[in-house]
Amino acid sequence: MTSPASSALFTDSYELTMVAAALRNGTAGRHCTFEVFARTLPHGRRYGVVAGIGRLVQLVAEFRFGPEQLAAVEHTTDSTTLQWLRGYRFGGDLEGYREGELYFPGSPVLTVSGTFAECVLLETLVLSVLNHDSAVASAAARMVSAAGGRRLIEMGSRRTHEEAAVASARAAYLAGFDATSNLEAGRRHGVPTSGTSAHAFTLLHTDAEGPDEAAAFRAQVDALGVGTTLLVDTYDITRGIETAVAVAGPRLGAVRIDSGDLGVLATQARAQLDALGATSTRVVLSGDLDEHSIAALRAEPVDAYGVGTALVTGSGAPTAGMVYKLVEVDGVPVAKRSSHKASRGGAKRALRRARDTGTVVEEVVYPASGSPTPGEHDRALIVPLLRAGVPVPGLATLQDSRAHLAAALVSLPWEGLKLSSGEAAISTTFLG
Amino acid sequence: MTSPASSALFTDSYELTMVAAALRNGTAGRHCTFEVFARTLPHGRRYGVVAGIGRLVQLVAEFRFGPEQLAAVEHTTDSTTLQWLRGYRFGGDLEGYREGELYFPGSPVLTVSGTFAECVLLETLVLSVLNHDSAVASAAARMVSAAGGRRLIEMGSRRTHEEAAVASARAAYLAGFDATSNLEAGRRHGVPTSGTSAHAFTLLHTDAEGPDEAAAFRAQVDALGVGTTLLVDTYDITRGIETAVAVAGPRLGAVRIDSGDLGVLATQARAQLDALGATSTRVVLSGDLDEHSIAALRAEPVDAYGVGTALVTGSGAPTAGMVYKLVEVDGVPVAKRSSHKASRGGAKRALRRARDTGTVVEEVVYPASGSPTPGEHDRALIVPLLRAGVPVPGLATLQDSRAHLAAALVSLPWEGLKLSSGEAAISTTFLG
Repeated sequence: MTSPASSALFTDSYELTMVAAALRNGTAGRHCTFEVFARTLPHGRRYGVVAGIGRLVQLVAEFRFGPEQLAAVEHTTDSTTLQWLRGYRFGGDLEGYREGELYFPGSPVLTVSGTFAECVLLETLVLSVLNHDSAVASAAARMVSAAGGRRLIEMGSRRTHEEAAVASARAAYLAGFDATSNLEAGRRHGVPTSGTSAHAFTLLHTDAEGPDEAAAFRAQVDALGVGTTLLVDTYDITRGIETAVAVAGPRLGAVRIDSGDLGVLATQARAQLDALGATSTRVVLSGDLDEHSIAALRAEPVDAYGVGTALVTGSGAPTAGMVYKLVEVDGVPVAKRSSHKASRGGAKRALRRARDTGTVVEEVVYPASGSPTPGEHDRALIVPLLRAGVPVPGLATLQDSRAHLAAALVSLPWEGLKLSSGEAAISTTFLG
Repeated sequence: MTSPASSALFTDSYELTMVAAALRNGTAGRHCTFEVFARTLPHGRRYGVVAGIGRLVQLVAEFRFGPEQLAAVEHTTDSTTLQWLRGYRFGGDLEGYREGELYFPGSPVLTVSGTFAECVLLETLVLSVLNHDSAVASAAARMVSAAGGRRLIEMGSRRTHEEAAVASARAAYLAGFDATSNLEAGRRHGVPTSGTSAHAFTLLHTDAEGPDEAAAFRAQVDALGVGTTLLVDTYDITRGIETAVAVAGPRLGAVRIDSGDLGVLATQARAQLDALGATSTRVVLSGDLDEHSIAALRAEPVDAYGVGTALVTGSGAPTAGMVYKLVEVDGVPVAKRSSHKASRGGAKRALRRARDTGTVVEEVVYPASGSPTPGEHDRALIVPLLRAGVPVPGLATLQDSRAHLAAALVSLPWEGLKLSSGEAAISTTFLG
């Protein structure tokens, strides 16, 4: 494997040059607060989902410059900086929105505080993890809403980088998907895995006489039992379903259709299965599905969806656009002033206000030094993640975060769950 | 680190169930040929760039089920299959387009041949690597064309998964970018790294008196020399440039502007630098650049571009859409027949025809068993990559592939390099 033994070089070169310059002029040790936030949501989105926190906490705790990492930068880094990197351990604090929390434009999703040098070094890694995983989870949550309780299987590994695939499977599960095709996500994160066969397996059963779909189905049923899912669209779908039920019997688990006009085909397949007595055999659809096509299939007799490309590419928004900004130095708020990318200085905290029905109505972002007038149904959004570089005991598990998100989505005003383009589901008030 | 010690679980669950079923009914050992190709290019693109071959060859050679991988699948896999996985080594052949080659719809980019079981198992990994890296390289090549020889720096790590960032930096360099911000891409792939400072470093130099941009610039120049690049848009750009030259002198390396109307600002910055005598100081632009905005800046006095989000997300096409299809079983061509996703059976090879000027005119895809009438300026496109599981000696290095792509782009008809939406630059003829 080419993977490094440390996360330390998942880092932009300029983090090291800034550390070097700050060590040289004595500013490296200034106490700083950096904030991660998104200026906007992707076009037309009504909410975002914070994802990657669990991965990030581990990666930050493992962020070390070992001999290999030091060797890679020694020719471009001065000896004082190399010495400092050699002893690097993040000893500051991380706090922020928990994984599975909703976020909106300007939400202070993560706050990193400590010395300038120890915090600035984490910028790239923090953003890589949060921007990727949040983009996927945000798209996945919309698909889960669209599926309205029907089963969703993540199968997009082949459409993204092999490691991004593992993180995508994790983010999809966080958002409410039921399973993934990705075996490493099963091993590493405990995501349930699922999968039966591809067209290649049917095509494999071809000889001089021609294709033998029944032989392929028989082999699969012999190996996996009648509860398996048979892929019926390699040749002719009607013939495929007929053969599937003939081979497996009416207790066949499911048929999968991967191409064509899926709505029409699902209805035909359901009718044919029922006519063959396979009334409990499920219909699984896959093939370029996204939240909109899933929603459009609501009236059709579909039992499960397999989603690939749209999931791992964030359904049009492959990155969450979060930034990592210095907001406070030795207690003094700082902010970039030029042009349209001006930011709000000062360390912040946030809470979410709800009606007594539980429906959320407003996000309030306020200076960390103060506290707004308490509302009866406020929920504090900031939780501690690392204290003095050590993960806080009892951090949320992936299952916890999955349940938290499911509840958070229920708390949105109804228009917040619409798939159409619109404004953020709730407005955010910034107290100054 | 959470990275596995093997690439073997970057694999969809169904590859294992197909292997199990094929082992059970005796079809696992049938000699098969799988082909990787893209049915189409991303909307409006005129060519694609093959990338990831170098990474893939290594990952396939390392594809092993060790104790950890076996433990992860043992509860869902029968003992015969587990035994087979334990001994797995890919012993087949890989051949295809070299890295840095152009491809078009239907180009047989990669051919994997061997037993059914040993080949089908590689499907997910092969597609993950090629779809990701080719998407990034294809976008990057358009940016390189748009930049017309000006320097391009890849700085998108923070906008994609931390490992995808490393592969993206490699793909961008392959496509002609000059450097990356990503340190791990430097260590792992030898890509030149580059980077100076962020707004945070300027903001760090703030005290009770307020911001002190000059102190930040002085610190950077002290640490990195006057040849460094100073980021001048934290507060006021005109003031920032004035301060930069005052601190570093007229031999300052470059100024970087990261926000605002970049074309106007570049022109103003150039004029101001020249008036200050800093005539050799370069102007570097960054901030949401893509191939179109790079092209739009052609008339402006820009020396270098930093490109982030658009690069790592494939500029609107984050995945290349390649598929992995079984095309031949024991010498018999096979193909999926249903619906619009029908494919062409049979193992294939390809060549590219050119005029005597060197301009390419046609791609010819033909059955591997035959050979088309030779043309005077044909170039064979298929090269061996692995033979009996072993990488072929003398495989192209990243530098070789970078040079190959640069030459291939020059060989396209002029309209093939247009950034606007259009047809594939050359047509493909399928001989049957």
